[in-house]
Amino acid sequence: MLLEHINQPSDIKKLSVEELGTLAAEIRQFLIETLSVTGGHHASNLGVVELTIALHYCYNSPKDKLIFDVGHQAYVHKILTGRMDRFDTLRKYKGLCGFVKRSESEHDVWEAGHSSTSLSAAMGMALARDLKGEKNKVVAIIGDGALTGGMAFEALNHIGAEKKNLTVILNDNEMSIAPNVGAMHNYLSKIRSDRHYLRAKDEVEMLLKKIPAIGGKLAKTAERMKDSLKYMMVPGILFEELGFTYLGPIDGHDLPLIIETLNQANNVTGPVLIHVITTKGKGYLPAENDSHKWHGISPYKIESGQMLKAAGVPMYTEVFGETLIELAEQDKRIVAVTPAMPSGSGLIPFSKQFPDRMIDVGIAEQHAATMCAALALEGMKPVFAVYSTFMQRAYDQIVHDICRQNANVIFAVDRAGFVGADGETHQGVYDIAFMRHIPNVVMMMPKDENELRHMMKTALEYNDGPIAIRYPRINGRGVALDKELKPIPIGTWEKVREGEDYAIIAIGPMVQLAEEAADQLKKEGVKVAVVNARFIKPLDEKMLLELAQSGTKMIVLEEASEAGSLGSAVLEFYAKQGIDDAVVRLIGIPDIFVEHGSINEQRQEVGLTLEAVVQEVKSLIPVNRYNYGKTSNPL
Amino acid sequence: MLLEHINQPSDIKKLSVEELGTLAAEIRQFLIETLSVTGGHHASNLGVVELTIALHYCYNSPKDKLIFDVGHQAYVHKILTGRMDRFDTLRKYKGLCGFVKRSESEHDVWEAGHSSTSLSAAMGMALARDLKGEKNKVVAIIGDGALTGGMAFEALNHIGAEKKNLTVILNDNEMSIAPNVGAMHNYLSKIRSDRHYLRAKDEVEMLLKKIPAIGGKLAKTAERMKDSLKYMMVPGILFEELGFTYLGPIDGHDLPLIIETLNQANNVTGPVLIHVITTKGKGYLPAENDSHKWHGISPYKIESGQMLKAAGVPMYTEVFGETLIELAEQDKRIVAVTPAMPSGSGLIPFSKQFPDRMIDVGIAEQHAATMCAALALEGMKPVFAVYSTFMQRAYDQIVHDICRQNANVIFAVDRAGFVGADGETHQGVYDIAFMRHIPNVVMMMPKDENELRHMMKTALEYNDGPIAIRYPRINGRGVALDKELKPIPIGTWEKVREGEDYAIIAIGPMVQLAEEAADQLKKEGVKVAVVNARFIKPLDEKMLLELAQSGTKMIVLEEASEAGSLGSAVLEFYAKQGIDDAVVRLIGIPDIFVEHGSINEQRQEVGLTLEAVVQEVKSLIPVNRYNYGKTSNPL
Repeated sequence: MLLEHINQPSDIKKLSVEELGTLAAEIRQFLIETLSVTGGHHASNLGVVELTIALHYCYNSPKDKLIFDVGHQAYVHKILTGRMDRFDTLRKYKGLCGFVKRSESEHDVWEAGHSSTSLSAAMGMALARDLKGEKNKVVAIIGDGALTGGMAFEALNHIGAEKKNLTVILNDNEMSIAPNVGAMHNYLSKIRSDRHYLRAKDEVEMLLKKIPAIGGKLAKTAERMKDSLKYMMVPGILFEELGFTYLGPIDGHDLPLIIETLNQANNVTGPVLIHVITTKGKGYLPAENDSHKWHGISPYKIESGQMLKAAGVPMYTEVFGETLIELAEQDKRIVAVTPAMPSGSGLIPFSKQFPDRMIDVGIAEQHAATMCAALALEGMKPVFAVYSTFMQRAYDQIVHDICRQNANVIFAVDRAGFVGADGETHQGVYDIAFMRHIPNVVMMMPKDENELRHMMKTALEYNDGPIAIRYPRINGRGVALDKELKPIPIGTWEKVREGEDYAIIAIGPMVQLAEEAADQLKKEGVKVAVVNARFIKPLDEKMLLELAQSGTKMIVLEEASEAGSLGSAVLEFYAKQGIDDAVVRLIGIPDIFVEHGSINEQRQEVGLTLEAVVQEVKSLIPVNRYNYGKTSNPL
Repeated sequence: MLLEHINQPSDIKKLSVEELGTLAAEIRQFLIETLSVTGGHHASNLGVVELTIALHYCYNSPKDKLIFDVGHQAYVHKILTGRMDRFDTLRKYKGLCGFVKRSESEHDVWEAGHSSTSLSAAMGMALARDLKGEKNKVVAIIGDGALTGGMAFEALNHIGAEKKNLTVILNDNEMSIAPNVGAMHNYLSKIRSDRHYLRAKDEVEMLLKKIPAIGGKLAKTAERMKDSLKYMMVPGILFEELGFTYLGPIDGHDLPLIIETLNQANNVTGPVLIHVITTKGKGYLPAENDSHKWHGISPYKIESGQMLKAAGVPMYTEVFGETLIELAEQDKRIVAVTPAMPSGSGLIPFSKQFPDRMIDVGIAEQHAATMCAALALEGMKPVFAVYSTFMQRAYDQIVHDICRQNANVIFAVDRAGFVGADGETHQGVYDIAFMRHIPNVVMMMPKDENELRHMMKTALEYNDGPIAIRYPRINGRGVALDKELKPIPIGTWEKVREGEDYAIIAIGPMVQLAEEAADQLKKEGVKVAVVNARFIKPLDEKMLLELAQSGTKMIVLEEASEAGSLGSAVLEFYAKQGIDDAVVRLIGIPDIFVEHGSINEQRQEVGLTLEAVVQEVKSLIPVNRYNYGKTSNPL
């Protein structure tokens, strides 16, 4: 095997182009076998095997900067840079990261997870290079899906004007995670479907010679026409108009052609865009045939492509999707809006039943949010289905367009809390902290999937402004689902366990953890109340006043950043009320980024565990009453 | 005067086109006179007089939706929709808003303040119209500067593909607030400078006929060439490629031509982009000659164009700009990055001295932030100079690219706190709440302009990750500026007044307010300590522990949202430490959007006043010790 001898990028430079082809086949086989056990991002990595080999063949990483957009398609890059032996730990706790990771290798020069950042990164690195008087190359590899993100255009606009030397590889696989949408996609399709462009250049020269010489008044226009003609025969005029030299489209699985084109690009002054056509899942038929399904996958059987997924209780996401259909059947105002995540957000069944009311805007969270505001102002009920981590992109639009105009937008915030294997770039742990301070918004989180359904009804009947429901990336609790949906009174909490002296105020899946802690403490003779703080905003002020008045000591338990989330809201409330004797403790996520692993491992890492909650309650118990507690004041 | 008879848009439909011209002149005169007294957005409004008249002449507002991007160029719209008599209250407290405002008029259908939202709004309104089966027109008016914002491209991409009927007016005045930058700008310039485009169409037809008929193998290519030629003679191919019908460029001061083109657009199926060339400041020479200076202005003398600005203590912004030059002379790593605000951020002198190290990316906060991360990872010291309110656009990039990668980016967060006349869309009151929960970031705010200088030195010497300095849109305190700059130890506060039993913990300009309150209370025999909490993150934990141990009652005073800002950080700290007996009160900005007015009026509205602070301290004084205090627990 050639692959066994590749420990660093320089090793592949010794190979012939034929051997590179063999290497590509070996890498593909390795990926298919490894991912069948680990799971991970599949189709996108099989699609860039030749491209990644060619990049390391033509450039000198890490001196030359290879910047992978999103970074989930860098498995081949990881293999070529000495990390093949760790692939069995892929996306596992303390194992190889599923994305580019600076701490893993000097060849990982830029981290991502969210899309569309690579062009800005490339521009920054090119500027730094020139200011330092250095000579290295800078290359960004970006998918056609990521190109729809607005910040990618901001960067194109800047790069095209500044004329810095850098290369953009447009990895065009005709889709991002979902089928691609938008005018740019249509434009790229036109180029792809019109491959005679490349062959036509010589013919154009011949034809131009046949046009008779034209003098007089029309001479200038004729000259212009000739220029135009040549120009039009070059595809990618849109990129040329933006200041790039466009090369392509080329077959992204033709190694010699890619290498030739990369070398050609290196001789161009100013920014170059190379349009490379790749096939997602290339070399593994099940993935080639359904590359959406094979974007991110669980372990599978290689022969059949059958995924080995444990059937179980439906996920919150699924319950959301099904309930939205029920509601939309009754209420024509409902429109679902997704930024390129129809499948991940559980909206495929909805899109089939209500194609006109399903709006996929592509990777464009900002546009999605502001469009939702306008839909709402015109009397619709837009449901903005978005992952917590991607909603970060729309923070300003949420403040400025939705909340400031008090538009009746419903946020369906999926993947709230830890997300597991995707890790730190995807954790949904800040949405409370970045939304709670915005006036006019209501925020909810259900304790189980049945409550999620009632919250959706609540949101639909609420007409006083924006309202958000956040829910986790886990299976529901397996509770029965009520047929009849009833709105929950805004700002009311529920006590799910009665207690004495102590109360755990929890949200979402943490309610279950609180219940387990209460059960255990009950066995030890301590009665702890559990409050389902289903409204994060507004708070149940009545209940909070009662808890303080009765001298109940409280723990706020949440799978969210401790800074600025529900715990802070409770503390702020008491401070504003001038209640100085309320005892409140916080258990949440401390001030660190939590890396990939299982959700349970992530909870363990930060102390969102049964033991920690039990211990925190015990620490509130006066020493004289409970023998292994500690005093409440460590000073 | 015609203008006196215009109370609603239908009134101008009765006028002849000649009379509309007279009306335009009257409006221009009214604006020049009114703004010389009130100040406000000047050049942009003089530039759209004819365009706005034509829009109201051709469309039926409010049934047809006129959506103004940014909304500061809607003065003519306000005049034509019955608000002329209130123009003396423009941008004043409880007066006419400087932006489009739904509560002011049914003709104001979409509010803004931040740029680049109008296309998303138009798409949302067009979708809602079609889903409801209605027939109204939707028109977005967007400047060439706003078009560089990424979300505008996200919307173009969506609109161009969906083929909804809507009209985009590209109001091209060759600049936004600052000289426009970017490839799109260059592209538009090319169209503008090439006006024979329009005349060439007939000539092209003639020429095409002269090309001999070509058969055989070349026939297909020849056919394609003919198509291409016609196509190339239409300017705006970039927009055509994105799915729009492009009309223009047309002279935006030629009323009959605008009216003709709008009517033409209304007969097109699918999205139309009309490229209108306008002159900022049109009709008032001083503004035409220096439209940047005349973007937003204070009162002025009409004859000379001289602005009536009181000279005084330099603003924080100016001190920032001057100090950055001092530091950059010594440190070649410093690069200044601005999203289209070189003047507003005090960077014009810097840009003259260090043109290579001044990067204006246009209205593109997301790209700016991520590019800064890359610059920092490559060893530069990027200074991202950005208004607090516009930094909201880059929240995700701050989390995902800057803080997660722990890049040494320096944030110079200008206009932190209330901003006065620009009002609720521009208040800089959330940056603490949306940044404090992000791991790795350090946040500072200076008590005066001298401390700002030392903080800049602190930020420059700090190499452990991102660090932010926020400062207000006001004049400094007039203190002496130290020549020698020394870094301040990270996470240390300073007591600027000693006291007993009570302490006000304040940031920025609130330190002065706290000092004034302490002075007044001292006269009444109450000694209140004042703490300059110059580090918002990390906190001075040592000082907080001492304050709690000594039983000092605390008030946290900040011109920032009460939810999630410094007050919360203090409360969280004590809760995490298990210190239950610390008494902390919060004075900040409550959960409302605060509208335009002077900064003092805005502070008054929310209780950031000397009286309120004094009263809050008194409320902490036990009744038996101080006769007009109240108990600390209102329950």
